[in-house]
Amino acid sequence: MGVIFYDLCGRDPDVRFSPYCWRTRMALAHKGVRFETKPTAFTAIPGIESGASKTVPVISDNGRVVPDSFDIALYLDETHPAAPPLFSDKAAIAAGRFLESWAFQNVHSIVTRMVVKDIHDVLGETDQRYFRPSREARFGRPLEEHQTGVDANAEALRTALEPVRKTLARHEWLGGDAPRFNDYIPFGALMWLRTIAGSVPLAPDDPVSGWFERCLDLHGGAARQAPVAKAA
Amino acid sequence: MGVIFYDLCGRDPDVRFSPYCWRTRMALAHKGVRFETKPTAFTAIPGIESGASKTVPVISDNGRVVPDSFDIALYLDETHPAAPPLFSDKAAIAAGRFLESWAFQNVHSIVTRMVVKDIHDVLGETDQRYFRPSREARFGRPLEEHQTGVDANAEALRTALEPVRKTLARHEWLGGDAPRFNDYIPFGALMWLRTIAGSVPLAPDDPVSGWFERCLDLHGGAARQAPVAKAA
Repeated sequence: MGVIFYDLCGRDPDVRFSPYCWRTRMALAHKGVRFETKPTAFTAIPGIESGASKTVPVISDNGRVVPDSFDIALYLDETHPAAPPLFSDKAAIAAGRFLESWAFQNVHSIVTRMVVKDIHDVLGETDQRYFRPSREARFGRPLEEHQTGVDANAEALRTALEPVRKTLARHEWLGGDAPRFNDYIPFGALMWLRTIAGSVPLAPDDPVSGWFERCLDLHGGAARQAPVAKAA
Repeated sequence: MGVIFYDLCGRDPDVRFSPYCWRTRMALAHKGVRFETKPTAFTAIPGIESGASKTVPVISDNGRVVPDSFDIALYLDETHPAAPPLFSDKAAIAAGRFLESWAFQNVHSIVTRMVVKDIHDVLGETDQRYFRPSREARFGRPLEEHQTGVDANAEALRTALEPVRKTLARHEWLGGDAPRFNDYIPFGALMWLRTIAGSVPLAPDDPVSGWFERCLDLHGGAARQAPVAKAA
């Protein structure tokens, strides 16, 4: 039966925006793992794999259930050692944890200011009733106030991505000579923005743009073909 | 004759505060390289090794001159492959570039707000006449205004160090199982603060504190014994 990948979706099941699920989708493709995707609404998560996780991504590998995008990457390296690594060694895993925290603190917060209300709007009604109060409690204000839009936060995003830019000034990938999980972490954040807003506000001559385009082309261009959410 | 290490110093030549020089001092010790240190004032840098660099650290390895803390680390790995690595592979070098940029953007800026006027005060008079106008031009205001002090910026520092903290929740070192150059990057930033201010404002139960103490003990405790600047 192979691997089942539970991927967050909007009201339209083809719209997949979760930054964490994008990491996993890229990681599965990177490892050459065949998988079946199950589009999953927020409020459907408690019903998958006997309530194994409160969040997606979750994979089920012939019944072995693994939640959490980072743990899934570690699991894939462990179970598919002959495929290209997501982490080359323990030092790379530690660096990956650093990037994971950096992205959450410095990039996800900005993408949220850009599009959190738009994310709400692409969800099904049941999900909207869960999403709005949970996020408004987290932000301490209505979604309509927390979202200040793409343009208002574009400069902050470009500034936050400076460590990515500086790395790409010397290496083709954040992983060095080849894409690794460290690439998929910020790539997931930008796919989150792209699938909701339609594009990413980076100048064409920004090295981050060139890298993002290379990532979009990886693994048969799966990410480039991902549908963008349509306003309701 | 071996390696000569040009290390920034204050009016008191035993006071060594440069975050970049701390990276190099730790890297040399890490590689087991014997070296002679030449304390170097800011305004003496143009006179070293025929003006090889506008900044320190600089090393001269039997006449081969290498400036820049990152390039020195790469050089040491290349020339001492049998000693413990500073970077385990190309992916680690790319991750190191990421951390270098992250530290500059997110940590050095805060340490500067904490102690830049105090740094000025520990310099010799000639260095002070160079330091004040160059930094005031960079900040667009007097040192006395740019420095708002350790306490006023302590929470910002703790927040900025969150990716370090999250990594250390799972790994003993930022390098994974062993210290690597990725440890010496933020360690250098905190040594900058410690040698000027005398201590680092982290809670004893903060995992970053435990890691900082472990770093202080590395290589014979060289960093722990480093003199703290005395107010003039």
